[in-house]
Amino acid sequence: MKLSEPSLDNLINLISRLPGLGPKSARRIALHLLKNKENLMKPLSDALANAHTKISRCSICGAIKSLDVNCTITKCHYINNSYDQLCVVENIADMWAMEATNIYKGHYHILGGTLSAMNGSDPQALLIDSLIDRVKKNNINEVIIATSATIEGQTTAFYINDSLKSLGIKVTKLAHGLPVGSEIEYLDDGTLFSAFKYRNSVNDNK
Amino acid sequence: MKLSEPSLDNLINLISRLPGLGPKSARRIALHLLKNKENLMKPLSDALANAHTKISRCSICGAIKSLDVNCTITKCHYINNSYDQLCVVENIADMWAMEATNIYKGHYHILGGTLSAMNGSDPQALLIDSLIDRVKKNNINEVIIATSATIEGQTTAFYINDSLKSLGIKVTKLAHGLPVGSEIEYLDDGTLFSAFKYRNSVNDNK
Repeated sequence: MKLSEPSLDNLINLISRLPGLGPKSARRIALHLLKNKENLMKPLSDALANAHTKISRCSICGAIKSLDVNCTITKCHYINNSYDQLCVVENIADMWAMEATNIYKGHYHILGGTLSAMNGSDPQALLIDSLIDRVKKNNINEVIIATSATIEGQTTAFYINDSLKSLGIKVTKLAHGLPVGSEIEYLDDGTLFSAFKYRNSVNDNK
Repeated sequence: MKLSEPSLDNLINLISRLPGLGPKSARRIALHLLKNKENLMKPLSDALANAHTKISRCSICGAIKSLDVNCTITKCHYINNSYDQLCVVENIADMWAMEATNIYKGHYHILGGTLSAMNGSDPQALLIDSLIDRVKKNNINEVIIATSATIEGQTTAFYINDSLKSLGIKVTKLAHGLPVGSEIEYLDDGTLFSAFKYRNSVNDNK
């Protein structure tokens, strides 16, 4: 006996392709949507269609923006002299994570990925030329590279540092070391190596 | 600094209302959708709109069906004499789970929930009148009640059994007992009580 509808099967299949979801959770979600057709399924369908037509990526800073307005998130179209630091992140989720720490109150530049020979992303797609442009046009003193501590992230950081070399500005990179709450015994070699190499002095003796 | 777009916030908020998802996974999904606008976001939006307009609940058996055709899943519009058992389940996912065991090859009746004083679902909404109708109109010998082993599921089973009393047919209920693979030591009192109460004889001595 065929127990499902083709249009439901199609919906379940699409939901199961979302990150973190499998066929079972996709089914559960699809049935939940069917149970809440008016107050969840319809608004979600509309929100997706709306986001599909309206949201695009800013070609200057890489943030998401509405098609009809300038980039409101990183305000990259403003020429603002109070703005002297630029934090380079891989993607929007990384920007949100940085922002949640409250340690940095400046502008962001979102690469939209990392350099990778594997999936073929190249420097043009990562808005690195646009980063150099932003640094030149604005009064930027420091570029903070906040890419992931992965091989791709660090390769990208190295490439960005190299690209910015001729501009004579300060370029920094997030510290590598022990994550808060970690126990030495359970840390991997790479982290311990970094933590040891970049150890800080805790008194004033040289 | 406001770091997001209203239309993206709205999308994330709707996704986070899906079962099993929270704000973090909703964000991740929304950003994944934005990265795959043409091959995932658009099809998903269309599939939702399509399911919203096309799929409805059959008022006879409770299964999902396309608006323009008769119920193809449980074939409740067929008068078929080979069809003498009817399995009553709470929802479509339960039907799929029953079907996956391959133990039952008959027709289903999907209640669409359980009787509950808490969230106010009443016998009319649960298609119990329609169940009585189906039993009367077709050549049904046995109604198998496959509701959950929860208070609501068992209350519903009791109510259904009571409603079918006057029809003089066999009404059965799924066995309660030890789940396969369980160890006595770790089972809850309720399960052990049921397993003991409904113990089966293993030899022919009375």
